[in-house]
Amino acid sequence: MTGFFKVTPLETVFALREQVPVRPVETLPLLEAGGRILAETIIPAANYPEFNRATMDGYAVQANATFGASEANPVYLNLIGQIAMGEKPPAAIGFGEAMAIATGGMLPEGADSVVMSEYVTPIDAATLEIVRSVAPWSNVIAIGEDMAAGQQLLTCGTRLRAQECGALAALGFSRVPVFQKPVIGIVSTGDEIVPIDVRPRIGEIRDINTYTLAGMISDCGATARSYGIIADDAAKLEQTCLEAMASVDMLLISGGSSVGTRDITIEAINRLPEAEIKVHGIPLSPGKPTILASFGKILIWGLPGQVTSAMIVFDRIVRPFIQHMTGRGAPPGYRDITVPAVLTRNLASTPGRTDYIRTRLEPGPDGWKAIPILGKSGLINTMLKADGLIEIDMNSEGLEKGSLVNVILFA
Amino acid sequence: MTGFFKVTPLETVFALREQVPVRPVETLPLLEAGGRILAETIIPAANYPEFNRATMDGYAVQANATFGASEANPVYLNLIGQIAMGEKPPAAIGFGEAMAIATGGMLPEGADSVVMSEYVTPIDAATLEIVRSVAPWSNVIAIGEDMAAGQQLLTCGTRLRAQECGALAALGFSRVPVFQKPVIGIVSTGDEIVPIDVRPRIGEIRDINTYTLAGMISDCGATARSYGIIADDAAKLEQTCLEAMASVDMLLISGGSSVGTRDITIEAINRLPEAEIKVHGIPLSPGKPTILASFGKILIWGLPGQVTSAMIVFDRIVRPFIQHMTGRGAPPGYRDITVPAVLTRNLASTPGRTDYIRTRLEPGPDGWKAIPILGKSGLINTMLKADGLIEIDMNSEGLEKGSLVNVILFA
Repeated sequence: MTGFFKVTPLETVFALREQVPVRPVETLPLLEAGGRILAETIIPAANYPEFNRATMDGYAVQANATFGASEANPVYLNLIGQIAMGEKPPAAIGFGEAMAIATGGMLPEGADSVVMSEYVTPIDAATLEIVRSVAPWSNVIAIGEDMAAGQQLLTCGTRLRAQECGALAALGFSRVPVFQKPVIGIVSTGDEIVPIDVRPRIGEIRDINTYTLAGMISDCGATARSYGIIADDAAKLEQTCLEAMASVDMLLISGGSSVGTRDITIEAINRLPEAEIKVHGIPLSPGKPTILASFGKILIWGLPGQVTSAMIVFDRIVRPFIQHMTGRGAPPGYRDITVPAVLTRNLASTPGRTDYIRTRLEPGPDGWKAIPILGKSGLINTMLKADGLIEIDMNSEGLEKGSLVNVILFA
Repeated sequence: MTGFFKVTPLETVFALREQVPVRPVETLPLLEAGGRILAETIIPAANYPEFNRATMDGYAVQANATFGASEANPVYLNLIGQIAMGEKPPAAIGFGEAMAIATGGMLPEGADSVVMSEYVTPIDAATLEIVRSVAPWSNVIAIGEDMAAGQQLLTCGTRLRAQECGALAALGFSRVPVFQKPVIGIVSTGDEIVPIDVRPRIGEIRDINTYTLAGMISDCGATARSYGIIADDAAKLEQTCLEAMASVDMLLISGGSSVGTRDITIEAINRLPEAEIKVHGIPLSPGKPTILASFGKILIWGLPGQVTSAMIVFDRIVRPFIQHMTGRGAPPGYRDITVPAVLTRNLASTPGRTDYIRTRLEPGPDGWKAIPILGKSGLINTMLKADGLIEIDMNSEGLEKGSLVNVILFA
């Protein structure tokens, strides 16, 4: 019972993030950088495009010279030349003049738009009939319209989606500075835990948490490294922790939820030189028996052994620490995706702790329905059915059926 | 102009999915299977757990023998033994009896719940004082309560999240059958396209689409393979297609949006033996000039050259085909994540085509605000700002400011 009920407020827990260093920078080929976190703010040195660029095949014109053009009342323009691909236009154009241009071509001085070929009929070598007017800057991307020189385009800490990779390609970044992936160690503890390829005897259970945690670690942009299963033996656990400390950036110990296993995690951490227990219990349900200790700049977590408790603590508490290490940072650098949905039943809650309720989303007549999945935290089946979590604030006594809740989607 | 405006209805386009084979099955170690698509329906052969399992350290009892127990009015039970970890209980228990049990232990016959140790004081070697009642099945996971023998647990086609991997671990799947990742080839075409590490001359542009498409291919669970940049030369493009046909499961040709490049894609496909053009134009904006051809069972797409058009066609049209190949299938096997949000401006639309509007999400006073990002489809910057898309139905003339729209989040 000791310090178990002296829970540490979540703000205090999250404040410890600042003590954890962001990973160093590495430079990757652009094709390998997708999903990684940008380690530099990108400010284009030049405008993109660097000139007024045609986005259609047609004729560069001054838009106002085409105003009023229609099938019934065509406008006639003087064709004064053509723009060879990859070259500067031979001349400027004036009102009433046109120059043939292909997609990607550079507009001549004086032109502000392109009339698409399909609305143009050459009458003779020097005259075009135009049957549709264009607005200024139609079928053109203007200098710097996509990315302006000197203006911040991507901030350090941005996750590189396909479009960010595309923008970097456009600017010629064949290699990209990103933060190295943190390596997160996983130790499963408990006399009752056996490897998954072993048939458990009575009282034994296969090592689930190594697999759920590895999946979540990978999903948040880090690398999982398993240190296997350690029996309830503080000396052995200390030894494994020491070994891990040499090569991980953070360690997760998933303990049995039994008091004995918890005590052994605490004992093993206490035996580690330099280690300091920072948190022993958090105001979270499920997940109260969470331990957080520091070993220099490396954090060691003692997660609950119950599979869903461990997953929820990881999702809500540990993940923001890993995201900080990956350089993605706190919101707004990272924000949860929440989906508003109508709650389909009352949910009671105990004030003084934040509750997370596993929830399924189902399409309803007016948007999503949030269907709470109530079940013991030992049941992995409840997580299979869940799309995300409902948070019940620590000051709330519950939520009413029919109210609009925000379902936090699983990452 | 040819077939350009004879757009193929989207139902007809999507119906072609059925001609594309799902990838064969491969078996992966569980730790490598995260994010992959399960290739078998999983029906547990045995109950999980296989016995009534304690989830707390304490005493196995019959719950009704504890009813009414409190600090003021304790209940006294006979301690008749203890259950050694990993062994069957030495005896059954009856009403008023208790047996010591640890987390993970097997409940004796007759017991239906566990009283946590903290509410129990041993009075002597044979007598326990209980100060809190338990409800039946408290602190116990019953036989088959998590996963029931013979009942479908995971269906073929399920994407393996962390929790599905955990359930497979619990059942002892150290290796998992998943569908092989399809290999999707990418060819960038256009005289004006240069590799990203080359400084473009006037009229040239770096090869953005290879990078945006590769990112999106990877995000939907396939492997991207680039076939480089091919100039506007039907024979060369045909040659590259033929080469790709030997080793890809699908090919994307991202063409310039110029009429010339489009024609060359069509010409190259027509030169391929066995190839057949199925679609030439779809009722989508942006993305109308999309081409779809078949080469035996391999599909070849001609995507628009404009970067955002190519991305939107990929997201809305090509991705469902790739998901089909990965075994994930159509909804409900896969469904978009949509977020309801309040539209911040009017959006006009032309009936007869489905419009996709790039949209940013911002927190508002009553949930999310959907802020359309209007801009030319050549501007990759618009995709950097976007969180997803608003769909405007082909029968709609637009959406009104203030209306509730569903924003389809980018995958």
